[in-house]
Amino acid sequence: MADKTLYDIRVEPQDVDFTLRATLASLGGSILNIAGTDAQTKGFGVDVLGRSNLSWVLSRFAMEFDSRPEQYGSYVIATWISDYNRLMSTRNFTLTGSDGRIFGRAVSQWCMLDLTTRTAVDMTSTAGMHAQWIVDAPPPAERPRKIGPLGDAALTSEHRVAYSDIDFNRHMNTMRYIELMLDMLPVDLVASDRGVRFDVNFLRESRYGQMLTLGCAEQDGEWRFAVSADGAECLRAAISFAV
Amino acid sequence: MADKTLYDIRVEPQDVDFTLRATLASLGGSILNIAGTDAQTKGFGVDVLGRSNLSWVLSRFAMEFDSRPEQYGSYVIATWISDYNRLMSTRNFTLTGSDGRIFGRAVSQWCMLDLTTRTAVDMTSTAGMHAQWIVDAPPPAERPRKIGPLGDAALTSEHRVAYSDIDFNRHMNTMRYIELMLDMLPVDLVASDRGVRFDVNFLRESRYGQMLTLGCAEQDGEWRFAVSADGAECLRAAISFAV
Repeated sequence: MADKTLYDIRVEPQDVDFTLRATLASLGGSILNIAGTDAQTKGFGVDVLGRSNLSWVLSRFAMEFDSRPEQYGSYVIATWISDYNRLMSTRNFTLTGSDGRIFGRAVSQWCMLDLTTRTAVDMTSTAGMHAQWIVDAPPPAERPRKIGPLGDAALTSEHRVAYSDIDFNRHMNTMRYIELMLDMLPVDLVASDRGVRFDVNFLRESRYGQMLTLGCAEQDGEWRFAVSADGAECLRAAISFAV
Repeated sequence: MADKTLYDIRVEPQDVDFTLRATLASLGGSILNIAGTDAQTKGFGVDVLGRSNLSWVLSRFAMEFDSRPEQYGSYVIATWISDYNRLMSTRNFTLTGSDGRIFGRAVSQWCMLDLTTRTAVDMTSTAGMHAQWIVDAPPPAERPRKIGPLGDAALTSEHRVAYSDIDFNRHMNTMRYIELMLDMLPVDLVASDRGVRFDVNFLRESRYGQMLTLGCAEQDGEWRFAVSADGAECLRAAISFAV
């Protein structure tokens, strides 16, 4: 049985907002970058999958933070895969500050996509490649929940997917989605150092040149989001802040 | 007399575009982040200046690249201050690939700002703090040139300065300006691996919530840009690609 793998991160000036604490987007970016690095290091990254015309696609993601670390602070990301089934592989993360306390937790669920048919592959046949890396430790937080349709949006905005938004696949980058959603919220709320939980469901990719429509509404004590590209829904999200 | 200081950088997946080469924005980001790190390490960073109610402000910046490094490639940034006068301190950079060849050069010119009066400080009296770090080596490329007004813009776009765009000072981040400008160009041009030179003149800061108007036109074989915030010009830039 494998162990959790640890990565050291330092909060650089480019990671912080005007409160001099790491932004949620930079923390989420570090988490997802470590997911890629860890898979690559262990031999089941997108580089290896690509040779079989397969790729990992993020399906659902949840992250929660008790507080955000300060500029020049350092923290450790521990990551491990806890389980997988036919459709989803679950990769987990904890973030531990230099005081030894866990201040962040994240759970990500990934599909393996056939790049020709654009459909999900049954991982019970192909994911043997990462079976040896399963760690016998449950997710450190509630798994990403399924988010329902938004209903009436109180706030909307538009954004055309540009060169700087896209990743190696010409798809809209996950962290740019998160930035665009946070940018719709009251700045003093986003910049406050409250406990926060962010759930995201990815429904469909958006591509270079598509016009995104973002809707946002405060419902049941949380902020709910829906993003569509050319009329087709591509993402739902919910963010809640501790009172 | 001091020597150039070296920093190792690796091109991570989050730094590349769909050609799997580092974006101009990520290269520029690395350069400017190293500027901050180097000043901080040597005792004249914004942290120390802040205690005297002073700060460094980027006034002009030029970067040129013969090619862009590939994902997982590594390179070395050498940085040094070549000279300063009453108004400007000149910090230089070369980027050297793992083959030992210099593929990128940059020159940045910084003012020292009094944060109360918002005016430039005469550095001949205050910059003794960095005099010992001057290196006897000239800039590796033409210094940033003065860019004239744009005239008629062939393309325009608007962008409201959002939470994700701003830095620790609540000002629009330099790299986000560069991303917004590159996003106005034909994507195949920006993604091509041609030689490129980028000159930027910073005229005025823009702040959270301001509406930016970007204008762009092809003039005399280069792309020229002007950015205004609420009607006041804040930036001019020019980018030229090798044929």
